[in-house]
Amino acid sequence: MLIGLPNALTPDLLRHLRAMGHGDEIVIADANFPAESCGARIERLAGIDATAALKAILTLMPLDSYVDAPARTMQVVGEPDSVPEIVAEFQKIIDETADKPARIRGVERHAFYKEAQQAYCVVQTAETRLYGNIILSKGVVAPD
Amino acid sequence: MLIGLPNALTPDLLRHLRAMGHGDEIVIADANFPAESCGARIERLAGIDATAALKAILTLMPLDSYVDAPARTMQVVGEPDSVPEIVAEFQKIIDETADKPARIRGVERHAFYKEAQQAYCVVQTAETRLYGNIILSKGVVAPD
Repeated sequence: MLIGLPNALTPDLLRHLRAMGHGDEIVIADANFPAESCGARIERLAGIDATAALKAILTLMPLDSYVDAPARTMQVVGEPDSVPEIVAEFQKIIDETADKPARIRGVERHAFYKEAQQAYCVVQTAETRLYGNIILSKGVVAPD
Repeated sequence: MLIGLPNALTPDLLRHLRAMGHGDEIVIADANFPAESCGARIERLAGIDATAALKAILTLMPLDSYVDAPARTMQVVGEPDSVPEIVAEFQKIIDETADKPARIRGVERHAFYKEAQQAYCVVQTAETRLYGNIILSKGVVAPD
């Protein structure tokens, strides 16, 4: 364990977060997500839900202010404007924890998979709520 | 880069710090130290001196309160009671940064090498001041 860091940030996840640069993306995925098919680096957080993972990651990772939507979730199939409860919870966590404001944008399911395949890594959580997936783009830390 | 974390904590060093458990040891070594002979995991911090490395590591890593001396340096050969300037600086950093008080203990040179061989990892810095080496024992983070 380390002082002040959430335990959900495992050794490999911490390494990935630090290794990522500006514009690199990380997927926080639910337990049903096809993570292995994405081909990216995969870190599994047994026993951690997607909201706890999001909160832990946002304590360290800046969001990208150079893109319109540094946080994207998967649209409900057939109901693109519906907002699942877990997505509302993701938004609340971003509002409370992220280093800068960001509105979540919904992405069509298969487009979401394509984006995930380009991500630097996928964090597969124990989340069982459907649509518990979010892609984050990493931003910059400015000089002091 | 990550929010609030010193840049000296590279991806692999962060991973090592998080992977270490209670009682595991890390060596912060100067540029002359025989790191490769230690056989441990080695992380090289080009351009970072030993004092900056110590300060960065202590921002995250708790010191072990279960041992008498969780911080040990190498005694000056032939002058075991002499305190090199850099060791005095190490002590100041511990006093100001560590999660708990600790007095540095000097260890005879070859005994220091033996201890280093048992460490979880060696961080080889760009430190050119002689005797710029310190071994730290990792402590525990208590529940909130």
